[in-house]
Amino acid sequence: MSASILDGKGLAATICEELIPRIDDFLRSGGRPPQLGILLVGDNPASEVYVRNKRRRAEELGLDVDLVHLPATASLDEAKLTINRFNESESHDGILVQVPIPLGWGSDASRELFEQIHPAKDVDSFHSINVGRLMQNRATLMPCTPSGIIELLLRSEIAIEGQHAVVLGRSEIVGRPLAMMLLHRHATVTICHSRTPNLASIAATADLLVVAVGRPVFVTHDFVKPGATVIDVGINRITDPDLVSTLIAADSVRWKAFKQRGSMLVGDVHPDVQKVAGALTPVPGGVGPLTVAMLMVNTVEAATARLLSNTS
Amino acid sequence: MSASILDGKGLAATICEELIPRIDDFLRSGGRPPQLGILLVGDNPASEVYVRNKRRRAEELGLDVDLVHLPATASLDEAKLTINRFNESESHDGILVQVPIPLGWGSDASRELFEQIHPAKDVDSFHSINVGRLMQNRATLMPCTPSGIIELLLRSEIAIEGQHAVVLGRSEIVGRPLAMMLLHRHATVTICHSRTPNLASIAATADLLVVAVGRPVFVTHDFVKPGATVIDVGINRITDPDLVSTLIAADSVRWKAFKQRGSMLVGDVHPDVQKVAGALTPVPGGVGPLTVAMLMVNTVEAATARLLSNTS
Repeated sequence: MSASILDGKGLAATICEELIPRIDDFLRSGGRPPQLGILLVGDNPASEVYVRNKRRRAEELGLDVDLVHLPATASLDEAKLTINRFNESESHDGILVQVPIPLGWGSDASRELFEQIHPAKDVDSFHSINVGRLMQNRATLMPCTPSGIIELLLRSEIAIEGQHAVVLGRSEIVGRPLAMMLLHRHATVTICHSRTPNLASIAATADLLVVAVGRPVFVTHDFVKPGATVIDVGINRITDPDLVSTLIAADSVRWKAFKQRGSMLVGDVHPDVQKVAGALTPVPGGVGPLTVAMLMVNTVEAATARLLSNTS
Repeated sequence: MSASILDGKGLAATICEELIPRIDDFLRSGGRPPQLGILLVGDNPASEVYVRNKRRRAEELGLDVDLVHLPATASLDEAKLTINRFNESESHDGILVQVPIPLGWGSDASRELFEQIHPAKDVDSFHSINVGRLMQNRATLMPCTPSGIIELLLRSEIAIEGQHAVVLGRSEIVGRPLAMMLLHRHATVTICHSRTPNLASIAATADLLVVAVGRPVFVTHDFVKPGATVIDVGINRITDPDLVSTLIAADSVRWKAFKQRGSMLVGDVHPDVQKVAGALTPVPGGVGPLTVAMLMVNTVEAATARLLSNTS
């Protein structure tokens, strides 16, 4: 038996295509395309890649992107001024702050910035009022990664209601909101984390296992009930050839690419899970592209809602 | 074996006693006692009992209570005016709206009223910004029933970290926030509900079982792992003598009281759980009094925080 591979990349493309008529409608009614404001600070290479991907996808869809890239030496006040400008602008519909932000701004700075974003433009849905609405099952904007996972399950016709979902990882961005969204859709939900004893045996009770722990190839076949659906949220860059050689065949295309680049992206799920899972998301090409697609959806949603509230 | 009984009523009295020096401090600094504004609408007998208990406890502690009791014929706007007055008042520290409110106000009315309460005075912690902060593990005011349960566990020295907690019931008031609070304290948490298959067998994996389903004596011994801690959140009034006769001895004091009153309060947990559980909260005298005590704590917390923010 081999798991069916859930094609996140393909679904992300479909979701984006479906947005085109909605964007056209908005353009006709609003006289401009929806616009996403992005605040990026410093020169973290991973952040630059993430922002480039988001921007590229948005521009492909004809959305406007206002990318403000502040230097690492900028102050928190400059960041706040940028968010204020986005908040007050008539033509900015969505706002996101790419993390991490400079450590020197203090441990509360990202929270301060998230709270400053107008909730109606909060396309990452990190503002506490949006987090609260999510928990109350009345959110309009929901965080992108969990939304993408729900969308993938729905469109793959994988049951949620009545299933036992186990979420490994309790982050604010993925684990906790996804647990709530699965609960609202009538799954029985277990949330596990680094201090859970017997992690593998609890995971192995899941019909639906979501892994968001940030540890490369951590979840092995013994974590998985035969036939279960496994969603791999992890994106980890590994460089150890000994580890890589245990994961992929020595003469494969990926091996050659690894030898060339010196690194490889893997998920939190070990490749041996393919032999037991019923369905599995790949890394790359699984949850990652869906996250970007749902950001596009949220931007269009926010724009449309703003247009409706202005004209009503 | 017989479960040790967790004395919620006694602990509630202790928690309230501990508040007295804090209330005295507030009185000295603020020149008045903390004040709780309560909005009660209509003549639901259960609501009147709840409000009476809250008011009595507050007044015993020397808190001021401003109870506004509107008739069932009042309008939603009148309710909003009352909340506005509480919000704007210098001397009102906590605000609560007793539910249910009149059905004729529409299905969104209670949500509208909760959202209107100033978050810093929101002693029930139902405002979405407070719900979000709870999920983000940075709440200062937390909902009273789950807070009372956490307090009971801590003071009874029942471990939370590393334990498997199973919460039966996913309400906004108890199940969901309690699941988050247990998670923040490093339990592994499973949330079950009416659409969970194999409810008894999942419950029986719990080290810590919290039952908040609103179904009289629903959880029987087969739901409980020997030695588990069982928290019974239910308060149900039953009137069927056949059911009552299966729960208590025919010559007991409670039976005589039942014969006299024609009704009896029971929890969601069947008495036969006493034989398997390690510890169990009684009904009445368990979670109920703790809920009221935590409302007092929240009122004093809110008052103190407002005083500090005014003088800083």
